[in-house]
Amino acid sequence: MTPGTALVAIDWGTTSARAYRLDGAGCVVDTRVAPLGVSQVEAGRFADALAALLGDWAALPIPRIACGMIGSRQGWVEAPYLDCPVALAALADALVPVPGVRLLVVPGLRSRDAGGMPDVMRGEETQVLGAAVADAGPTLFVLPGTHSKWVYVDQGRVVDFVTYMTGELWHVLLQNSILGRLASTGAGSGGSATSAFQRGATRGAGSGSVLHDVFGARTHALVGELDGDDVADWLSGLLIGREVRDARQWAHRHGLDASRVHVVGDDALVARYAAVFRACDVAAVHADRCAAAFGLWRIAVQAGLVHSDQDHP
Amino acid sequence: MTPGTALVAIDWGTTSARAYRLDGAGCVVDTRVAPLGVSQVEAGRFADALAALLGDWAALPIPRIACGMIGSRQGWVEAPYLDCPVALAALADALVPVPGVRLLVVPGLRSRDAGGMPDVMRGEETQVLGAAVADAGPTLFVLPGTHSKWVYVDQGRVVDFVTYMTGELWHVLLQNSILGRLASTGAGSGGSATSAFQRGATRGAGSGSVLHDVFGARTHALVGELDGDDVADWLSGLLIGREVRDARQWAHRHGLDASRVHVVGDDALVARYAAVFRACDVAAVHADRCAAAFGLWRIAVQAGLVHSDQDHP
Repeated sequence: MTPGTALVAIDWGTTSARAYRLDGAGCVVDTRVAPLGVSQVEAGRFADALAALLGDWAALPIPRIACGMIGSRQGWVEAPYLDCPVALAALADALVPVPGVRLLVVPGLRSRDAGGMPDVMRGEETQVLGAAVADAGPTLFVLPGTHSKWVYVDQGRVVDFVTYMTGELWHVLLQNSILGRLASTGAGSGGSATSAFQRGATRGAGSGSVLHDVFGARTHALVGELDGDDVADWLSGLLIGREVRDARQWAHRHGLDASRVHVVGDDALVARYAAVFRACDVAAVHADRCAAAFGLWRIAVQAGLVHSDQDHP
Repeated sequence: MTPGTALVAIDWGTTSARAYRLDGAGCVVDTRVAPLGVSQVEAGRFADALAALLGDWAALPIPRIACGMIGSRQGWVEAPYLDCPVALAALADALVPVPGVRLLVVPGLRSRDAGGMPDVMRGEETQVLGAAVADAGPTLFVLPGTHSKWVYVDQGRVVDFVTYMTGELWHVLLQNSILGRLASTGAGSGGSATSAFQRGATRGAGSGSVLHDVFGARTHALVGELDGDDVADWLSGLLIGREVRDARQWAHRHGLDASRVHVVGDDALVARYAAVFRACDVAAVHADRCAAAFGLWRIAVQAGLVHSDQDHP
């Protein structure tokens, strides 16, 4: 088998699916994306979606593996959650095959906090595995997004994790609440967007009530202290600032000092978090943006589906 | 002038307008409601809306007064905010006439917290005036709703107030976010709705992160610990529980013990707040549900528009 044909790895989420072709060294040699997320595919049509996503890759006689919402109850096959704390290596032992199809699905993780509230993830566990350094000590991963995840990993084990609905809250407040009324998306206002984000982040980093503070996206605009073009940035700063504050307290309760984090995500969003981290003296490392693909590779190697030609750098 | 014809008082809000006809004792003798709130009326058509709301009352040769969003920039005439702390009696000195129309508009109030964030209200100041006992010492009013207000009044002065977007957040999260996906509105599940509300309220009264805790409306349902019919109640409990916790801290910062509150609102919503107040040993008094009408009456008396035949009980 030549490099270029070792594994097809799929990050199959709620809204979209992203397929990677990896060579024998675990490097991505090609990528395909389709708007065929779990919420976009009719029940019973996942085989068609897979064929459409893979195209001519479907003919390659190589293993295939997928992570994300495809393993949820609303997905193709349910891959039951593993409970934290759990070794990331356990993911490879818990792959669930799609009956009659050459596709193995990675399970998600579940945790439960001291107050009895469950938390869940599907897909992020694979990104963390892809970004983690084997045998590293206590490490804090941040995966910003619609539902941001903070993940505490120690010696290859996920000790605990926590979800913040930051991205989705920002979206629904702007799109569906009164806070969007004074927001505009015009030509922009030069440097004021950055300033508005930072002002919001400063407020969010404080000890105010979120239920109250979000109202500032309206009141600052009402009294002329915030341009319509800047409302979205102020609110983004407020919510990200608050997420970082709350998550650092969560980390402290775990005995982590949280002065260094590994951030996995797209550049624009990571830049927003980086600005907040700088303001509170947290050192942020931007992790591999192909974390999901390499996580799936590692799981495939551990499961004996592929044999690594060489150690990945 | 006989009782029955002393004043037409209008609580003119964002979505609806409610007109009261008051007799010479300040008692409501008739009420008319129309879906003619400020957001429902085209600019320039407020005179038509007033005529439609009042019907044959329009012919009564008596003073008319209105409070609420009708005095906002998007309303009929802008009645500039009064800044807190401010005496409620100052409202009568700041009425703004609609040019060419027999209608006086009550201004709203504005405050600014130590962090520099403004807060605003329009309409609630009138409800508070209607519910307040003259010369009473420090009193905490709670006006639950889309944008809940907590108002600190002392000796007839509004010292400060604070807004919580509790009701609107509940609405948009259920209607527009992933939290609504597992929610259903079926035949109900007997006593479990109350239990779900209380479970949510207990969580909300804790010190958790709101950005995280709201996710429990999904995760509890995912793991089978919350019926679809109960998701909305759990989330309602969580948010109201958090509002009460945050607002009591706000009150404490003002030196109020917040062990007794006066709640102004509709019965169903007040019952939810009452359950939370009971759980934290706060004595809640349910104030007059015609608070806006009587507040407008008091303002009209103070402004010399009407002369009270008798003291209101």
